Amino acid sequence: MRILGIDPGLAIVGYSILDTDKDDIILSASGSIQTDKNKSDSKRLLEIELDLQTIIDKYKPEVAAIEKLFYFRNQKTVIPVAEARGIILAVLERNNIPIFEYTPIEVKQIITGYGRATKDEVAKIVEMSVKYNKLPKLDDTLDSIAIALCYLRNNLRNA
Amino acid sequence: MRILGIDPGLAIVGYSILDTDKDDIILSASGSIQTDKNKSDSKRLLEIELDLQTIIDKYKPEVAAIEKLFYFRNQKTVIPVAEARGIILAVLERNNIPIFEYTPIEVKQIITGYGRATKDEVAKIVEMSVKYNKLPKLDDTLDSIAIALCYLRNNLRNA
Repeated sequence: MRILGIDPGLAIVGYSILDTDKDDIILSASGSIQTDKNKSDSKRLLEIELDLQTIIDKYKPEVAAIEKLFYFRNQKTVIPVAEARGIILAVLERNNIPIFEYTPIEVKQIITGYGRATKDEVAKIVEMSVKYNKLPKLDDTLDSIAIALCYLRNNLRNA
Repeated sequence: MRILGIDPGLAIVGYSILDTDKDDIILSASGSIQTDKNKSDSKRLLEIELDLQTIIDKYKPEVAAIEKLFYFRNQKTVIPVAEARGIILAVLERNNIPIFEYTPIEVKQIITGYGRATKDEVAKIVEMSVKYNKLPKLDDTLDSIAIALCYLRNNLRNA
């Protein structure tokens, strides 16, 4: 099974591809879509759309796991992230990829068993849970792995 | 000149087509994209995308005017509206349509000269400003006319 994990944003969309292979979870690819803050929002959103389609065409994920927004977050940052989610969700739907959504608290809860886990604690679990050649350093990309892992923990018995 | 006015939302996207003809502003078309609240957000966003593309193909607007979100609005409603804006902005950009954005306060200010005008006051000005066969009753569609008018007032001397 191949899962696409996505941490949405207008400036940075972190993504990762996890594959399950018997007892292992393999990080097959990871990276980020980064858009130019000097461009208009609409240009940045279109860039996210086109890049995400390229990633889907290349890796052909069977399901997608994406961060869901929750209302307690800073209002100013919530709007661009929601706009990015809008285009990302439409692209996934257009490609008939089933979508699973988790709030940041759910991700922490499911991954570490504790909804208030720190970034380092989440990173530690990610490191222990997946086989990788090299772990990404960018927070948004690491978060996308945690989100994809979240789907696996919820849906595969041995994940 | 042909303007597409858009009042974004996940449940209802109000839209209208205004044409300028010498001294007149003509309401050539108006309506709404309505999505089923029992469907997933991603299905609704894809529906908005496809319907908006159909509207653009049919009316070939030269510019688009769309409501911009502002931060003081109810947080719970801001997220789905921003998600809808995300897909709408990307579709407009993909079609190379220049985008002009106005907050609700700017719309009121530009249309009526008063940022705290009531819905009825805005509706009155819309009614006096455009030539129409029938004015739409739906608030979201009326708002989309006000948004398109806003672009005309800001950019055409005789609007």
